[in-house]
Amino acid sequence: MNEEDKTISELGEFGLIRHLTQDIRLKNPGTLKGVGDDAAVLDYTGKLVVVTSDMLLEGIHFNLMYTPMKHLGYKAVVSNISDLYAMNAIPKQIIVSLAFSKKLTLKQIENLYAGIKLACDNFNVDLAGGDTSTSLTGMAISITALGEGEKERLVYRSGAKKNDLICVTGDLGAAYLGLQLLEREKKIFLENPEIEPQLEGYDYVLQRQLKPEPRADIIEFFRENNVSPSAMIDISDGLSSEILHICNESKTGCKLFAEHIPVNQEAENLAAEFNITPIVAALNGGEDYELLFTISPGEFVKIKDNKNIKTIGHITDRENGHHLITSDGTFIPLQAQGWDTFENITDK
Amino acid sequence: MNEEDKTISELGEFGLIRHLTQDIRLKNPGTLKGVGDDAAVLDYTGKLVVVTSDMLLEGIHFNLMYTPMKHLGYKAVVSNISDLYAMNAIPKQIIVSLAFSKKLTLKQIENLYAGIKLACDNFNVDLAGGDTSTSLTGMAISITALGEGEKERLVYRSGAKKNDLICVTGDLGAAYLGLQLLEREKKIFLENPEIEPQLEGYDYVLQRQLKPEPRADIIEFFRENNVSPSAMIDISDGLSSEILHICNESKTGCKLFAEHIPVNQEAENLAAEFNITPIVAALNGGEDYELLFTISPGEFVKIKDNKNIKTIGHITDRENGHHLITSDGTFIPLQAQGWDTFENITDK
Repeated sequence: MNEEDKTISELGEFGLIRHLTQDIRLKNPGTLKGVGDDAAVLDYTGKLVVVTSDMLLEGIHFNLMYTPMKHLGYKAVVSNISDLYAMNAIPKQIIVSLAFSKKLTLKQIENLYAGIKLACDNFNVDLAGGDTSTSLTGMAISITALGEGEKERLVYRSGAKKNDLICVTGDLGAAYLGLQLLEREKKIFLENPEIEPQLEGYDYVLQRQLKPEPRADIIEFFRENNVSPSAMIDISDGLSSEILHICNESKTGCKLFAEHIPVNQEAENLAAEFNITPIVAALNGGEDYELLFTISPGEFVKIKDNKNIKTIGHITDRENGHHLITSDGTFIPLQAQGWDTFENITDK
Repeated sequence: MNEEDKTISELGEFGLIRHLTQDIRLKNPGTLKGVGDDAAVLDYTGKLVVVTSDMLLEGIHFNLMYTPMKHLGYKAVVSNISDLYAMNAIPKQIIVSLAFSKKLTLKQIENLYAGIKLACDNFNVDLAGGDTSTSLTGMAISITALGEGEKERLVYRSGAKKNDLICVTGDLGAAYLGLQLLEREKKIFLENPEIEPQLEGYDYVLQRQLKPEPRADIIEFFRENNVSPSAMIDISDGLSSEILHICNESKTGCKLFAEHIPVNQEAENLAAEFNITPIVAALNGGEDYELLFTISPGEFVKIKDNKNIKTIGHITDRENGHHLITSDGTFIPLQAQGWDTFENITDK
């Protein structure tokens, strides 16, 4: 019997791990021991270890009805890689813990791993360990990513100074709008399964939601051009929440200018369909995995020609508060709405 | 309003993380940045990084009906610490990802964190990061543990050689029997809630199940006495499964002698109540978090006086197979039964 023809129960836990990891080739010389022992062994000689972890749960962070397994695996990895880039670190290894319900087939789990491995290949990262088990209910994926940092190059949330420029990469809000589109089509499908999903013409927003790409190019650009951001964070919970994190950690205020916040044209069109102000999707949407950073005004000359970076505001004294300024000069206080999975909880 | 009086929804995700982590003091100088940024930053100058991760799920790995939250937090940490000890590494940091359902109160989550923090204190480990979110169903805890290793001291599963002695620490099977006891009392309680649980006289087996202690003492003993195991693994899935891991990775066979396998007296008594052969609990039970290791015969003199280490067999050529030898000389082939959470899955 070929291994591919076996069921998960026939493979067993260790057989499944072996099956999923048999073709892994380690890429980084620092990964001394990967899958197959009690722990992975990594050599970070001369570098600092930067480590982050995220857990994704079915029904909370993803919906298997419209999330292909391969995309899910890819996104679970890149959301962690994005956190390492947000420290100005270079990703090197991931450890994957996976729990899935009985209803999944081996083929589905293979597809999930195909996405995980594709992300590892695209970002030169080693899959260095992990475990799998069953879940009584939904699926859970927990990924830990490790990367190397240099003391003088690491960028924290806490380094922003008054008058620093606030910059953002790419464009914002599209991932959130992609999610709204998928939710709408899901609802229509559930009401009438004979209606085909209307997804044509929305390639960009769907790609932003289903296959986000963290900004390896920007981290490389910083290195090549000797750019030293004073503070940095990745945008997973929406611009508003993230700039408030930087300001809170840096003990500063900020001014953002609405007209400078980059929104893609396709996202704007879709926002109009949903009666959403595009800037609100950018502020509160989340999952864009772009970088938000601050730099001293003296460094502006180094970034001004990079088309993927937009300056959207500046850092102020804390007493000035945290505001979005609209094109007609109205000051709107920023609020950390973001992706709060707790919002509906009452435990009284 | 005091923070303690707030509900989880009033605190929000970031408020909850702040509340749970506000009293954390970093203990290890190598933990440069802990909770509060996109990632933790660790200095492993001169050491290798050893990293492991485990996810525990409600209903699969624990049952909240008889697992106190504080114990659950403690056990989730020490099971990972045990994996680092199994590499002969020194634990330094953990990263905790947590998902819980709406029904949990803030007090319950505080208790879980109290257990996590107690384990961190007892094993001199820093809680260096993590995330929390809600779950639609049960609770999930994923912990990544990082520790430091020295190249010439790390012990893999693959180093066992023919004629090496097979040794085990402490005693085996008690954690499994503790679980059987809790399951029996749960069943009685569900049938008749007025019957009080009968747990008196079973302190040891219950402690082994609810508050296991990984063998920091043995790792220290190895260091002080310059003991170099040739292979090592921790016993989380039962002796039988673990020795087969060592033999498979080392490409050897093994002989275990049933009468030398250490079982605690209380565990033996309870096994009799359940009509379980104590040695079967030791072989297949799991969750003992003892260390199983091999050493060359020349090193025996260094360990023979340690009362916490028992020699239970030896490594043979692969062709000789993997056997348990009973006191009457019967050879029983070892099988990897262990804790296979996949055993009931069919996805055909």
